[in-house]
Amino acid sequence: MKVPASPMRKFVPYATAAKKNGVKILHLNIGDPDIKTPEVMIKALNNWSQNPIRYSQSQGEPVFLEALKFYYHKIGYEFIEKKNIQVTTGGSEAISMTFFAVAEPGDEVIVFEPFYANYNSYAAVNSIKLVPIKTEEKTGFHLPTKSEIEKKISNKTKAIMICNPSNPTGTVYLKQEMDMLAELCEKHNLFFISDEVYREFVYDGMKHISVLDYMKKMPEKIILLDSLSKRYSLCGARLGMLITLNKEINAGVLRIGQGRLSSGLIDQFMASKLTEVKDDYFQQVHKEYQKRRDVLYEGLKKIPGVYLEKPKGAFYTIVKLPVKNSEDFCKWLLTDFRIDDTTVMMAPAAGFYGTPGLGKDEVRIAYILNSDDLRKAIEILERALIEYRD
Amino acid sequence: MKVPASPMRKFVPYATAAKKNGVKILHLNIGDPDIKTPEVMIKALNNWSQNPIRYSQSQGEPVFLEALKFYYHKIGYEFIEKKNIQVTTGGSEAISMTFFAVAEPGDEVIVFEPFYANYNSYAAVNSIKLVPIKTEEKTGFHLPTKSEIEKKISNKTKAIMICNPSNPTGTVYLKQEMDMLAELCEKHNLFFISDEVYREFVYDGMKHISVLDYMKKMPEKIILLDSLSKRYSLCGARLGMLITLNKEINAGVLRIGQGRLSSGLIDQFMASKLTEVKDDYFQQVHKEYQKRRDVLYEGLKKIPGVYLEKPKGAFYTIVKLPVKNSEDFCKWLLTDFRIDDTTVMMAPAAGFYGTPGLGKDEVRIAYILNSDDLRKAIEILERALIEYRD
Repeated sequence: MKVPASPMRKFVPYATAAKKNGVKILHLNIGDPDIKTPEVMIKALNNWSQNPIRYSQSQGEPVFLEALKFYYHKIGYEFIEKKNIQVTTGGSEAISMTFFAVAEPGDEVIVFEPFYANYNSYAAVNSIKLVPIKTEEKTGFHLPTKSEIEKKISNKTKAIMICNPSNPTGTVYLKQEMDMLAELCEKHNLFFISDEVYREFVYDGMKHISVLDYMKKMPEKIILLDSLSKRYSLCGARLGMLITLNKEINAGVLRIGQGRLSSGLIDQFMASKLTEVKDDYFQQVHKEYQKRRDVLYEGLKKIPGVYLEKPKGAFYTIVKLPVKNSEDFCKWLLTDFRIDDTTVMMAPAAGFYGTPGLGKDEVRIAYILNSDDLRKAIEILERALIEYRD
Repeated sequence: MKVPASPMRKFVPYATAAKKNGVKILHLNIGDPDIKTPEVMIKALNNWSQNPIRYSQSQGEPVFLEALKFYYHKIGYEFIEKKNIQVTTGGSEAISMTFFAVAEPGDEVIVFEPFYANYNSYAAVNSIKLVPIKTEEKTGFHLPTKSEIEKKISNKTKAIMICNPSNPTGTVYLKQEMDMLAELCEKHNLFFISDEVYREFVYDGMKHISVLDYMKKMPEKIILLDSLSKRYSLCGARLGMLITLNKEINAGVLRIGQGRLSSGLIDQFMASKLTEVKDDYFQQVHKEYQKRRDVLYEGLKKIPGVYLEKPKGAFYTIVKLPVKNSEDFCKWLLTDFRIDDTTVMMAPAAGFYGTPGLGKDEVRIAYILNSDDLRKAIEILERALIEYRD
């Protein structure tokens, strides 16, 4: 089958084997935060009384759609109505539905590499072609010029897709970049798709420019992908959403939604408690991640041969390592290297590139551990790089 | 977009409008049972203490895989190991993964019409072609002869797929039918896919012949699709599974599974309590459905012009009505017809056929209401058929 293995998860069997031998793994490979889910959501489970556990509605459980409307209005987008929202089973399903909605098999979607590796899975499932445009560490993975992007637009191109803030690079796109993409999409009649799962995770006082800012101007062409997984530490709750003012897409994704019946009822009721989450919950989460980002950046840049730019958002960064093949190195860390019976798991970056051969000396690191564990992970990485022989 | 509307759900807006006007709807349109979920599962929510709600593993949460193994061993299939099971987000995802795993875009899968309408959605999403072979009410929707099936096998055919017991017909396939399909699949090197979501819902003392009985003989070619939705009244929990001894398929669906990260953590923990569900839970459920089946069958066959065979399994039946277009009739019931401010919602059967024009005077009825409500629904239907003018 033509689905590639997930770079975040392909080494899980090695990690499992190591754990069986009593080894502690510091997981920098996957964005599964240790931050607590808001207590009010856990309480919704503890107070659960609905029985049977019936299907939810295909577009989304009404109470959850209402909560999402509340959220988007609160962050300033009061034009979003419930009819513009399709609840999805994780941000993952929103990606898949979007690819299906905007492209026929063989069509192309432009992405900027390195990009979130699972876009590959959905491209494969929907038989569409991702056309990667390279961005580079030295420019903080910001976008190339308009003309360079335009060169990649063909008569098969249906959309330009970004992740903002970016998983895996931590890049936060600037207003002029967003303007440029909007112009390009308007000019070439393309969909402008933005995955904004990490919207709130923007550091150093930067402002996040959402694709929602362009939605009223380009109602037919803009699609927002979103998820609660990171915002409320709800990765295991499998709740995302697809938002657009394009009525045809609304209707089409609802038909796909009907085909899979519904997203999880319990998850949606639990998550609808987001209306009761206090603002200081997210302020603390934000502060914690900025601190972790600083710990990671300061620690890594001191290691000889290691190179990274300071990430501005999300909780990932791409790091260049002094190794020939980061895949071998990541595997070796799991199978052979331990300090105090502890090792580090990272995602080899090659899986985040569409162009074969790129990213071979890079890893993606998710800084989702507390500062102490992060420091320990950096120390292990530093010593591993001394001992490792390509 | 090429996804058809769900015949079970396309009239939801009319139902919603009727409900807003105070009309009670008796839902015979969708298999969303009113049977209670086992209390031990609800208690698992009430006792929930895990925080954060982290990702589950892509293949399935270990405790849930263990519970599934327990279940299959208990029903007599002790050869099934955890590595043969992929947990899916509802039976729906198991269908989609299977189509993707066995067929390339343009390939064909043989199904017997009428068939579960959502197979169409997944065929569309995966760009494969369902080749329907007609079965008929008068033979209880049992299979045609081997040679009639063979006529439809082309060099693009990759699989034969059944739902057993069948949604939407209630047919339970006989041993000789299962033998015949297994032989055909072996002879023509096809996958034999069986959706057995309703395995336990078999009435009148009939024995269900599972595709699992053929799995050890044809380890490479058999795929079982399953779900907990109906068995434990967990429709809203979105948990299914794909089971095969074919290692390549196991590995491939796991890669798709990794692409969508995981199924819901809470749902899986809750459902893993199936190991503690007492046998009498299902005995009572079974008895209740057989009673409902009898109420429905006895009631409907007395209505002039209505024709149905006694369904043997699942909780659906296809019913021929004395109307020209059941779609118009079903819509009219929601928009115009009430008795004591109550009406009936059914699924027009045309959406369950692949061949255009078939099933136009049929509906699919799900007998998921208690006997009193079922009797009321039958009464409403009888009077509606008298008043209705095509």
